[in-house]
This record gives sequence, structure tokens and C-alpha cells, in this order.
Amino acid sequence: MTPTTVSASRCHGGVQSVFSHASAATGCVMRFGVFLPPRAERERVPVLYWLSGLTCTEENFIVKAGAQRVASELGLALVAPDTSPRGDGVPDEPDSYDFGVGAGFYVDATRAPWRRNYRMYSYVSEELPALVAATFPVDGARAGICGHSMGGHGALVLALRNPRRFASVSAFAPIASPSRCPWGEKALAGYLGPDREAWRAYDATALIEAHGWAGPPVLVDQGTSDPFLDTQLKPQLLREACARAGVALDLRLREGYDHSYYFIATFIEDHLRHHARNLGAR
Amino acid sequence: MTPTTVSASRCHGGVQSVFSHASAATGCVMRFGVFLPPRAERERVPVLYWLSGLTCTEENFIVKAGAQRVASELGLALVAPDTSPRGDGVPDEPDSYDFGVGAGFYVDATRAPWRRNYRMYSYVSEELPALVAATFPVDGARAGICGHSMGGHGALVLALRNPRRFASVSAFAPIASPSRCPWGEKALAGYLGPDREAWRAYDATALIEAHGWAGPPVLVDQGTSDPFLDTQLKPQLLREACARAGVALDLRLREGYDHSYYFIATFIEDHLRHHARNLGAR
Repeated sequence: MTPTTVSASRCHGGVQSVFSHASAATGCVMRFGVFLPPRAERERVPVLYWLSGLTCTEENFIVKAGAQRVASELGLALVAPDTSPRGDGVPDEPDSYDFGVGAGFYVDATRAPWRRNYRMYSYVSEELPALVAATFPVDGARAGICGHSMGGHGALVLALRNPRRFASVSAFAPIASPSRCPWGEKALAGYLGPDREAWRAYDATALIEAHGWAGPPVLVDQGTSDPFLDTQLKPQLLREACARAGVALDLRLREGYDHSYYFIATFIEDHLRHHARNLGAR
Repeated sequence: MTPTTVSASRCHGGVQSVFSHASAATGCVMRFGVFLPPRAERERVPVLYWLSGLTCTEENFIVKAGAQRVASELGLALVAPDTSPRGDGVPDEPDSYDFGVGAGFYVDATRAPWRRNYRMYSYVSEELPALVAATFPVDGARAGICGHSMGGHGALVLALRNPRRFASVSAFAPIASPSRCPWGEKALAGYLGPDREAWRAYDATALIEAHGWAGPPVLVDQGTSDPFLDTQLKPQLLREACARAGVALDLRLREGYDHSYYFIATFIEDHLRHHARNLGAR
């Protein structure tokens, strides 16, 4: 099934597009952004998946991060899916910004009424990469993943559980351990139920301690003025898990930066170069 | 009157803020974005004003253009006002995207009910620069102006009529001659009345032919796939006026680029360097 083009704009010598398609995993129409660098006109290029945070859609990263400039230079494709299922028939909690639409949390829900559509884990780990590899001039064997906040959690979990699919991982201000913060506890209890054992499959610190990570060092940027630092993000839990498991973590604390896309835009170049190096882009 | 801080985020080593203040010119609360580069912590820096296009607010440029990276490097402050008066008591045509709120057109309206609030020309040429110079570590004697679409028209008109205030000018996809396109004719007739003689004070081509421009070359970028190119923007009218008046115009036609911020983000660096050079930033 070829995805439908929603928009396409030339950008930094490449093309930034948005596509939509009927997703089997989530049972609804999903949108995703794709940036193809000029080099993709001649050869298959490595690809970096970007997962956004709470309340975001496929749009935030592609309009705010300024990633296309360096991705164009490095010959890196960028794929930015929506964060959650949405649309008619998709259950929601309209009064919650941190549960339901806009807060898919990159899990496969097991509880009604969420389990039919809230399957972002399967969507990002299986359906989307297959669709991307079949549709665009990308090399699916050279894929990395990155994300912000809830999407930083998603990127870590997706890579840790699928190291052959995602050979390189980084995050901005990730929710390091959703089992141990209010955002994560609400989401995991709601989508998976109260049994905390089931939550471990979606907690980066639990996954690192259980299985380690044999890939290149994990890069994490975190602003020191992020209002969610101590209550929700807790990068020290990631640091402790990596230390215990012998996983190389490059955790960069950025003085005075907050949780916004201004923070992401400032350091996205470092992440793109990290992934390009790891994926042999150049 | 000190403006009120709406938000402030560290970005590329500087600070991106949004302020609000009660404007005398427009009779309503106005917002504007300010980016201060690191150098502004030590000395007064030159300043570039950015005027956005139809339907925009102070937010579009500061989140989408990616200008802060190079402005930080060059030591250039950026000031991005809202495009129009807005709020309770400000007249509007809610069904028009191209008249009323979101379409101030950088004129001083002379017709009721617009003339009380729709005074964006006075706001940008007088009130805002005075407020900026009094509040921030910028050097008001080294100011440039740039804008997009309706804001490109605004930048050209503001500079051409105030060459001592704005020593350097550039534009992205400007409405070159609002007297000769549907957007401009609707706005000028609505705000100024049917007498086309009064429109000449807000038409860059008329101003160039009447008064010339003794400043550095005018830089204009224009995408060739811009859907408004032939009907609304008409850069050839600007080219003809500059040729007749002996004004140096550097008009860059960009193959395949459209009217979006992806186009602006691609070429904003050229404009920032143009202004920094003209303003002696470095």
C-alpha cells in the first residue's frame, strides 16, 4: 500500500514530505514526515527515526528542530511518525494531555478500550520500517532512532528491544524510567494494567539491566532548567542502570536549557552526526 | 513601560524570549519575539527585525526558521513582532484570512473601523524600535529589516521610507507591488480607501521609483514553485522598478522551492549574513 502524499516541500536541497496511510497496527490513518536528502536521488541512504513527545504530532519535529540542514549534508533520511493513533473511533481521554491521543507512549496496549488502536510499539518497530523500506530510497539495515521526552523513552525502548532494527540510539530529555514517574505510571497502568512486571518491557532502565546494549554509546542531552527534570525524566536512573550493566552512556547536561524545541534545535546537529557516524552515512 | 516576559528559553547559547506590552500605536496588547545572542551579554549588538506573512503571529518565525543558530554566531539580535493588532475590541473580518486580524499589511489604516488599531506601520517604524532600544542591549543605529510574503512587502516599505532607521533590507517571496495584486488591492482598499494615490506610500515599487534606495543592495529570495508567484508576488515588478531607479537588487530565484518556512529555513542563513555584513556585526 503506497502512502498518500499530504504535502511536499523542497528544503535544504532535499524534500520534506508528509504522508498518510491506513495502519494495520493501529487501525487508523497514521501520518508521518519524511525528509529525503539530495543523496537519496542517487542511492539508498541511512535513516533516522524521530519520536516526539506528549501532545505532539508528526509536525513538531519537522517544522521546529531545524534538522534538515545537517541531514542534507550528511545524507541521512529522517522519518517522524505521529505519537499516537487518532481520529474517529479511536478511544481517548479528551481531558488528559498525558493519556490517550497525544500520549501513545510507544507501547502495545493490552487493556480495553486501548488495545485495539494503541499499538505504537508494533507500529514503530515493524509496520513503519517495512513501509518506509518499501517506499523510499532508504537502507533499512542502517537505521537509528532518536526522540524527545516521551519519544526519548520510546527511542530507548525501541532500540533496546530491537537492536538489529535500530543500530544507533539517542534521546533528548527522555523519560528514563516510566515505571518510576507520574507520567509513566499513569500511562503504563492505563494501557497495560496494574501488574508492574508487564511494565518492564517498556522501561529503558529495566531493559538495560536485563539485556544490556551492545551497540555504540547511547547519547542523551538533558537541559538543567527542564521543569520536568526531577519529577518525570530522572536521567540519573538511566545513568545508574547503564553503570550497572556496563553500557556506555554519553549523558550531556546542558546548563540553563529547558524542555522546548529551542533546546532540541540547539543540539540536534550533535545527534545527527552521532547517528550518521554510527550508521556509516559518511 | 517595561514589556512583560511571556516566555524565555535558552537557545544556541543565547535566549529566545516572547514579550507582551500595551501598544499605544495599535491600542491593544502586542506580542513580539526577541532573540539575544551571547554577545549581547557584553555589548550592544545590531538588530534584525523580521515581519511575518498573512495569518502569522510572532511565533512562526521564531519556531520555524532556525535563525537563532547563525544569529548567535554573528552576534545579531532578532525581533519578530506580531503581524497585526488582535484581541477584544479589535475589529476583524473573521471569515477573511487576508484582511483584518492576521493581515495587518504593515499600513496605518485611515478608514473606519480599522484606523484605530490597524497601525502596524507606526508600530514597526516607531513604537517597537523605541521600546526595543530602551529595553534590550541592542544598538538601534544598526538595524536591518527582513520579512516573508506580506512581511516581505512590509520590510521593503519600512526600509524604503525609513532608511535611517533600517540600514539594510531583504525579503523572502515579498508581495512586490500590493497595488497590483489581489491580496494587496483588497488590503489597501479596505484600510486606506479606493484612492490609489494613497496606496503608493505602501507599494515598494512606487517608493523605489519615487525615492530610490541609497543603502546596500536589496536581497530577495523567491522560490520558483511558489504557488503565489505569478498572481500575488510578481518579483519582476520589483526588478523593473529597481532597474528604472538604478537600485541594486540581488534577486535569487530558487528552483523548486515553495512559499513555506522550509524555503525560509533553507536560505535564512544567507539573509542573516547579508544583514550582519551591512550592519557591521562582524
